[in-house]
Amino acid sequence: MTNHEFYMDLALKNAQAMKGQTDPNPLVGSVIVNDNLVVGIGAHLKAGEPHAEIHALRMAGEKAKGGTIYVTLEPCSHHGRTGPCAVAIVEAGIKRVVIATLDPNPVVSGNGVNILKDAGIEVIIGVRQEESQKMNEVFNKFIVQKQPFVTLKSGITLDGKIATHSSDSKWITSEEARKDVHHLRNENMAILVGVNTVMKDNPELTARIPNGRNPIRVILDSTLKIPLDYKVVTDNLAETWIFTTEQHDHEKRKKLEERGITVFQTNGSKHVNPKEVVHILGEKLISSVLIEGGGAINASFLENQLIDKVVLYIAPKLIGGQHAPTFLEGTGFDKMRDAVELSDAEIIKIGRDFKFIGYPTYKNEGF
Amino acid sequence: MTNHEFYMDLALKNAQAMKGQTDPNPLVGSVIVNDNLVVGIGAHLKAGEPHAEIHALRMAGEKAKGGTIYVTLEPCSHHGRTGPCAVAIVEAGIKRVVIATLDPNPVVSGNGVNILKDAGIEVIIGVRQEESQKMNEVFNKFIVQKQPFVTLKSGITLDGKIATHSSDSKWITSEEARKDVHHLRNENMAILVGVNTVMKDNPELTARIPNGRNPIRVILDSTLKIPLDYKVVTDNLAETWIFTTEQHDHEKRKKLEERGITVFQTNGSKHVNPKEVVHILGEKLISSVLIEGGGAINASFLENQLIDKVVLYIAPKLIGGQHAPTFLEGTGFDKMRDAVELSDAEIIKIGRDFKFIGYPTYKNEGF
Repeated sequence: MTNHEFYMDLALKNAQAMKGQTDPNPLVGSVIVNDNLVVGIGAHLKAGEPHAEIHALRMAGEKAKGGTIYVTLEPCSHHGRTGPCAVAIVEAGIKRVVIATLDPNPVVSGNGVNILKDAGIEVIIGVRQEESQKMNEVFNKFIVQKQPFVTLKSGITLDGKIATHSSDSKWITSEEARKDVHHLRNENMAILVGVNTVMKDNPELTARIPNGRNPIRVILDSTLKIPLDYKVVTDNLAETWIFTTEQHDHEKRKKLEERGITVFQTNGSKHVNPKEVVHILGEKLISSVLIEGGGAINASFLENQLIDKVVLYIAPKLIGGQHAPTFLEGTGFDKMRDAVELSDAEIIKIGRDFKFIGYPTYKNEGF
Repeated sequence: MTNHEFYMDLALKNAQAMKGQTDPNPLVGSVIVNDNLVVGIGAHLKAGEPHAEIHALRMAGEKAKGGTIYVTLEPCSHHGRTGPCAVAIVEAGIKRVVIATLDPNPVVSGNGVNILKDAGIEVIIGVRQEESQKMNEVFNKFIVQKQPFVTLKSGITLDGKIATHSSDSKWITSEEARKDVHHLRNENMAILVGVNTVMKDNPELTARIPNGRNPIRVILDSTLKIPLDYKVVTDNLAETWIFTTEQHDHEKRKKLEERGITVFQTNGSKHVNPKEVVHILGEKLISSVLIEGGGAINASFLENQLIDKVVLYIAPKLIGGQHAPTFLEGTGFDKMRDAVELSDAEIIKIGRDFKFIGYPTYKNEGF
């Protein structure tokens, strides 16, 4: 590990510590080093408050002069609430700027670096780039594409099943894994399921953690068959948005809306069109969605290349069964070479289960 | 880590280094320590040659007196080729014996310890017991049950599939994973598949590694439909044993036997009975079998509680498909609580894939 990596890791750690409190801003951390001593540390704490570099510069004071500043994201060039950070860095007499990654917004990307270079400051870009980008993966997608970052989550047996052939699914994963799911829900602005999942278990679909924020419950229900006395309709624990098609029951829609449920009609004739759902969620400023569907819903989102991240809780159990459902159904790919590969794949242990994380890389035009 | 664990780890490492050269004997290592100095190390090198303790005692010579000996397996009490090791330890003046695990053979288990204790030697049992037992898992089962240790191996996608809905399976896993499979084959005395796997790919079923030993190819073929010009019949690269039922084609059997193939008729009327197969393999002194079947064969062995170990190569890929085959089919369990749990589960990375290892723990009477 180089010195650059060492200090950037510290900046990343401080940035990550603010997870959940900077929305809608990204996580950013900063460290200033002069003469081999850390003279300032900073992180962006909250939207409307100073950026990470400003905090670090204030802490360093005079000692910033001639020093090196590490920032996990390109210093801004715009006159926002705390002025352009790039200018503040120049004015503080910093000699060298080490940046993990450029601003993801193509409109401003590189502008901060240009201000620094124009002032004769040495700029190094790309130290811990991947880590920084992953840390803000939701923000980075939404700011550019105006569409939510979509995570597919499933709890499966080692043989890929999400239930037995007779539909029993309680429980596949351990308590520790199920707790982790509640954190995932808390981190996402919306949770999406099909109406069949709701019909089966009458779930709350909430994040049951202390001080947790419940995601908006998004339900795909092409005919509005959801029972009016089900928890997601009656419990008021979180907003419920139902996406339906033109074949929906109009009386039912009225009753749902009377109960405070938001109903969106999409253009899909038989099934709700997943692309339209994601598009509408983006318009409603939903930056992150967690899909916890059955095999058909999951496959339809994957087919449409809408999944950005896959999180699987794999229980070391075997259930067997030619007709036991797997977490990914539909028709499936025809050739192995067309399979969706997952990059940056990693597996960590959670209790007695394994948690898999990977990022789909789409090669072609879907299934 | 205690001193005991430190020295036992050294004994285990020396034992493990002899993998593949001690058959039919188990792997055993030994270390002698006196006054905080290692004064002797030993391992069992080859059947017919001295046991690990004898090598270590010879190296220590006079310095064994008053020392502590670490052995990964209980010293023997029987008058074999090199006399009872327990007696040799007593005669060398050893003060303390640390044993990883007792002899798995119930007929002699504890006898070595008794000789040592009767001589007034302190005996500590159980240091690194699990590691020692795993190292000799094949030997430990075979010596007690006279049945082979059965490993189920499969290469799967993250969603549990072994092929696409149109039966394409080339390739699911990476070259590194497929190389590892050849080592697995080399370590097993037999490899077992169903005839459908043979029909599909006309495979060699050999261990393609330098100086590798090819396992006996065991094929379950209830009617003897295997083509006479297929590799496993003609290539002479390894023995081929075919298990069939009473409904087999007698003419075909004669032709297969003329080509050097061994044919076993089992009592199963429609399908070959997996319990009978394992029993017969045990009688033929086959101590280890690697099952590389399709979903039906794999499920039938699991249903019959015949699988001792599961090794899965998991490719970070999604293939989807309600009708794409998974590695475990059959009927499957009815309730999640009846699922076969795998203990000591671990996952390591192999190339871009993951290798899962676990040990089924059977709770009830099968599916």
